[in-house]
Order: sequence, then structure tokens, then C-alpha cells
Amino acid sequence: MEPGPPGGSRPAERGPCLSSPLGADLAASASLLSAAGAEAGRRPLAVAAVLPAGGCGERMGVPTPKQFCPILERPLISYTLQALERVCWIKDIVVAVTGENIEAMNSIIQKYQHTRISVVEAGVTRHRSIFNGLKALVEDQPNSKLCKPEIVIIHDAVRPFVEEDVLLKVVIAAKEHGCSDYDLEFGTECLQLALKYCHTKAKLVEGSPDLWKVTYKRDLYAAESIIKERISQEICVITDVKEGEENVGHLLKEVLKSELPHVKVTSGALCHARGDLQQIILKQCYNFVCVNVMTSDFQETQKLLSVLEESNLSILYPVVVVSVHFFDVKLVPLGQKMENLMSIRGFAKEVRKRNILLCGLLICYPQGEQKLQESLRQAAIIIAALIEERNSGLVGQLLIA
Amino acid sequence: MEPGPPGGSRPAERGPCLSSPLGADLAASASLLSAAGAEAGRRPLAVAAVLPAGGCGERMGVPTPKQFCPILERPLISYTLQALERVCWIKDIVVAVTGENIEAMNSIIQKYQHTRISVVEAGVTRHRSIFNGLKALVEDQPNSKLCKPEIVIIHDAVRPFVEEDVLLKVVIAAKEHGCSDYDLEFGTECLQLALKYCHTKAKLVEGSPDLWKVTYKRDLYAAESIIKERISQEICVITDVKEGEENVGHLLKEVLKSELPHVKVTSGALCHARGDLQQIILKQCYNFVCVNVMTSDFQETQKLLSVLEESNLSILYPVVVVSVHFFDVKLVPLGQKMENLMSIRGFAKEVRKRNILLCGLLICYPQGEQKLQESLRQAAIIIAALIEERNSGLVGQLLIA
Repeated sequence: MEPGPPGGSRPAERGPCLSSPLGADLAASASLLSAAGAEAGRRPLAVAAVLPAGGCGERMGVPTPKQFCPILERPLISYTLQALERVCWIKDIVVAVTGENIEAMNSIIQKYQHTRISVVEAGVTRHRSIFNGLKALVEDQPNSKLCKPEIVIIHDAVRPFVEEDVLLKVVIAAKEHGCSDYDLEFGTECLQLALKYCHTKAKLVEGSPDLWKVTYKRDLYAAESIIKERISQEICVITDVKEGEENVGHLLKEVLKSELPHVKVTSGALCHARGDLQQIILKQCYNFVCVNVMTSDFQETQKLLSVLEESNLSILYPVVVVSVHFFDVKLVPLGQKMENLMSIRGFAKEVRKRNILLCGLLICYPQGEQKLQESLRQAAIIIAALIEERNSGLVGQLLIA
Repeated sequence: MEPGPPGGSRPAERGPCLSSPLGADLAASASLLSAAGAEAGRRPLAVAAVLPAGGCGERMGVPTPKQFCPILERPLISYTLQALERVCWIKDIVVAVTGENIEAMNSIIQKYQHTRISVVEAGVTRHRSIFNGLKALVEDQPNSKLCKPEIVIIHDAVRPFVEEDVLLKVVIAAKEHGCSDYDLEFGTECLQLALKYCHTKAKLVEGSPDLWKVTYKRDLYAAESIIKERISQEICVITDVKEGEENVGHLLKEVLKSELPHVKVTSGALCHARGDLQQIILKQCYNFVCVNVMTSDFQETQKLLSVLEESNLSILYPVVVVSVHFFDVKLVPLGQKMENLMSIRGFAKEVRKRNILLCGLLICYPQGEQKLQESLRQAAIIIAALIEERNSGLVGQLLIA
């Protein structure tokens, strides 16, 4: 699978930097670390991160080291890099992997378009890997693009759900307590080592339950479910009729809202407001329901697919597109309508290569108010199933509500 | 959802008692606890279990207490009861729940046909709940069916994956080390309490990684994935042609074997060996692919569904049935064939009430050797997706390979 073209770049992330749900105190501290703080006349604190990723994952019970195990077809370590990349005040991220994995690591960085990442060879132990990472940050190499940091965060490659607030607390603690830069850890084990051997004041920073480590196979399952849940929080309904006009696309949107109360349902139209859609894509919506009412067959869906392909939204996560069609059994036999829509199989196969999961959904219409509502409710259940599962085995199928 | 009729009983479980993959030493110890040991002239040791289940699950971040959170629509505590019930030498299982949950707990016991379970009211703390459970076991109530136990296992209601071998080790340790019967625990916290206050020799018994506790929401996700994986290890292919005859059902079976190497693919035929199928059901296979070659439409699938309904196999887990049909585009137009098969929606709706998830799968045939193989491979991918996801939102759909 090649989710993105080598040339394109993925849309900017909903990065928390400064604007995010950090508390006021933390936001103020974050500003000291970022360019914004620097512009106010203060030199921003130079922060880097080192990720030891040389482990073999023996407790996982699978042959692949856990940091390279795929979640939605993307290696776990890429999720961890993504979490650190979103924090704009971390200038450099150094990953230490075993010699045999350096090439694979570089491919991951290229494929998922990670930035600010350097790869070094891991040592025989975790601590030696950290040492190698630190060495790369402080050595005066003539061609090195790395900045010499004042604070280095050591972060496990298998803790993908780290948030900016925790990292910030760690940096603040390091600044205030003068911990040595390579002892700061999210566990107590390293804290005890630091206290025992390093003649330094170490401080344990409270993490959040999200900061758990992927250790066992069950943790991979949990991580996959959490990621699937996170990217299923918003559905964008695209219709080929004008916003505000009463139509069946609008009805479907309302039913989606009431049947899936935990999901944010937004809408857009391609015909007159392509800019809107770009905004939605920029806000990282990974689920689209494309309602073809006015236009025949897949005209609207094809437009949406080409916008999505251009956007590179699907580089990090599989994007689900449900192409919705309506039919009236009194006008066209169901079998004929289904046969007409079979071309979805070809489109689906094509966009699958770009990490877009396309399915069709045929909704019976009209059959009287009550029956239509029942069809739409059924449609909402099917849409929810497709989005929640995000299973590539079902692409190109034409489902019926 | 009412998975089973009130009258019927679910098939016996693949219970480990004695015959299972326990080591020789453990198997010998187990025989001392069971009726088999008793028959050899020794009195079996009376073992009971108490499950404190009065917690409110505040760390879970969901309103339902975690022991009642649903996994595949069944409450977590039912999985834990199931794990203990499978161990034949545990005579009685006492569950302590808060007063407001007693009725719900009794419904769970009835709905999922648990046996050897008594319900008592929980105390204000975990230790008081355990005390109430113990009291119920030792009190001389005139109508009590409970046996006075010599050893009591205290087991968290939210550790659903406990295996017989660990329980047996606990019992052996209790016997040898004379621990007081209510201090034996799978954690170190209670062990320390026991050592400190109870003037008893306590011993920490090594658990397995499977013995983890469902604490956070992510643990529920992990538990669901583990359970789904466990019940997806076997697929039974039912055909309406004689075993051994070369036919497309046989081809599909071979492709399933090669495409899904981690799954055990068995087969059976309803027409001449209904007994075979009963054996497969008794061995707890939860996935069926029913190939309709000779008979028209759903004749074979309907036979299978009625066997499954009679068996009550679906009381504990949703059973997936994929009804497979073949068509030759040269003979019948695809649309017409699809329309013919639309009656699957009605069947699916009906058996859904009994926790059977029915989908249809239409396979193009014949189109030359290579194309047929491609269709069959596609079919295997779709079957795998339906079995892995076990999503009730997709029942009644007709998929195409």
C-alpha cells in the first residue's frame, strides 16, 4: 500500500501548540518554549526528544518488535513520532533503532512524512541507546542540522498517546529541579536510578492514564481501538444540493446526528464551496458520507475522491468514504439499480491504493414518512459500522438500507 | 436482544477440567479436587470462589460500573463467571454486588445460563464484600445449597481471562502454606496486608499476563479484541454436496485455508451427517460458511440456521453465518440474482434476535481458473472481515466477491 505520493505533503495536524486545551499556566509556559515567546524578546528554551526504540518486544509474543507492529497498517512508532511532532516547541526528535532497522525506520519517516526526526543506531541496552541519541544532539558534526538542546525529553517509542501538557510539565520540572537531562522519565524505575546514582534532584511528574506503554499484544488491540475511536468522532456529509434546501441528504444528516449522538456531523457541498471542504480536511475529518441526489451515479463521489486524493489526508489514517444513492422501487427495479452501481468496485480498488476506503450505500426512497425514517436509521447504523471498523476487506461493497 | 430461549440450555463448554493443557503435576493435583479423585477413595477438597463486584468503576470514565460494561453485548462479569464455571472443581461461586444491582445480576445469571452462582449484597468496601461472600458460604442456612468450603479463591470480577492452571496453583499454595482463606490474592497489595495483619504465611502465586484486570476503558477495548480473536479461530464450511466430491464449496474451503492460515477450517454437510455438525457445535465453533451449490437460494442456509437455533450455541457469543451463493453472469444477470437473494434480509432480521449474525456472499463463477481463484480469494477476505468484526450493523447485507 502506498498511501501518499512521494511529492505531496500531508495537511497540518490539529496540533495543540499554545491554542490547545492546556491550562492558562501551562499555556504561558509553552509560550516561553515556542517562537511566540522568542518574538517577545526572550530566547526560547531549546528542547529535544530522544526515543529509544531498539527493543525486540519479547513480551508481545509476536515476531515483529512492538514499536514496528502495525496499527491500521501503520507502524506504532509512527504514531509516537506524530504525537511528538505536534508539539511545536520540540525542535529535534532523535530515534535510536538497531542497525538492521535503520533502513525501515527511514522508510517510515519518508512514507508518513515525518519531520524533525533523526535516526541513530541503538546501543545494546536501553540506556546506551539513550546515550547514542544524546551524543547525536550534542556532538559538533559539521553537517548536523540538530540544535544543541538545554533539555532533552526521553520518551518511550511505545507510548503513542503522549500529550503536550505532560511533556510540558516534564520540561518545566527539569528546568526547576535541575534534573540531569537523561534521567527524566515517565516511570519510577528510572527515577530511582537517578536518585541513587546521579546526585541530582529528580522529580516524578504525574502522567495521565493515556500515557500507558504498549507492552503486550492486548495493548496493541487497545491502541488500535483508541485510534479508531479518535478518528471516528466526526462525519462530514457532502451533498450535491444547496445547503438549506430541504432534501434527502439533509434528512440523512439529521438522522445521523440523532442516531450517533457522540459523533460531530458536519456538512459541505462540493458544487459551490470547495473551500469549505478544504477547511474540513484541514480539521482532520476522516469520514465522509457523499450523497448523490441530483447527479447520476457517482459524479459527486468522484469529485470528492479527487479532492481527498489531492489533499493527502489519507497519509496517516485510512479515510472512509460512503457513497450514498437513493432509489425508488416503483421507478427502477432494485436489481437494475444495483447493477448500475457496480462500477463502485473499480473506483474502490483504485482509491484503496491511496488509503481511501470506499463503500456504496443504497437507500430505499420514498416509501412514506415512517418507512423512510426506518431506512435512514438503518443507513446510519451501516455508516457507523463502516466507520468504526474501518475494515479494508469490505471496500467496494454496495450495502442496502 | 434475547440470545436464547428461556427453556433451552447452552452446549457444554470446552472446559479444561483434567483433560486440558495443564502440566502433568497440575493435572494430578486437579484430580484431587475433582470427582475423579474422589472416586479413587479420597475426599475431594471443597473449593469455592468469591467475586467482589460492588465497585463503581470510576477510573473507567463511563457511567456503567466496569463489571457490567458490555463486550459483544454481554456484561464483562458474565465472562468472568464463565471462566470460573469451566473449572469443574470449584463447587460454588458467590458474587457480591450492590443492592441496586442484585436484580440485574440475577438476570445476567439467567440469561447466560450460569450455574453454581449465588448472589449476595456487597459491603461498603471490597473487603466487606468479600466478608459477605464468605459469610454466605459458611453460615448454616436451612435452605442453603452451598457447601462449606475448605479453600476459598477470591477473584476480581474484572479479570475475565483467568485460567484453570493459575487457580489450581493458588489452591495448592493455600493448602501447602496454610494461608488464611480470604487473603489469597493475585496482587501484591493484599499479600502485604495479609503478611502485616494476619499472622499467616502468605505466598505470592505467579499469574500469567492473561490475568490482567479491566481497569480503564482501553482494557475493555483490549478484552473485546481478545474475545473476538478467540472465537474467530475456527470456521466450519457447510456444503450441500457430498464430502470428497470436487465442487466449488471444496475449492472455497481450500482457499480459506491458504488465505487464513491462523484459522482452523473444518467442514460438514447437513444432508447426510447432521451428527457431524452437532459435534462441531459442541466444540464451540462460532463461525459458519454455508455454501449453497446444489439447492436453490437459501435451502441449505435455512437448515443450518435451524440447527444453530436448536443448539443454543449463540447464548454466550454472537455466531456468524455467511450464506454463500454462486452465479454465472452468462446465465443470469447479476441484478436479477441479487434481487432473488434479497430475502436474506428477512432471515437475518429474524435470527439476529437469537444472536446469529447472517450475511450473504455472492461469488462470480465460473470465469476461468485464474479469475475464479481471484473471486475465491476476495471471498475469503470478506469472510475474514465479517468474522473478525462481528458487527451486527452489517447483518442482512449481500456482499459480492
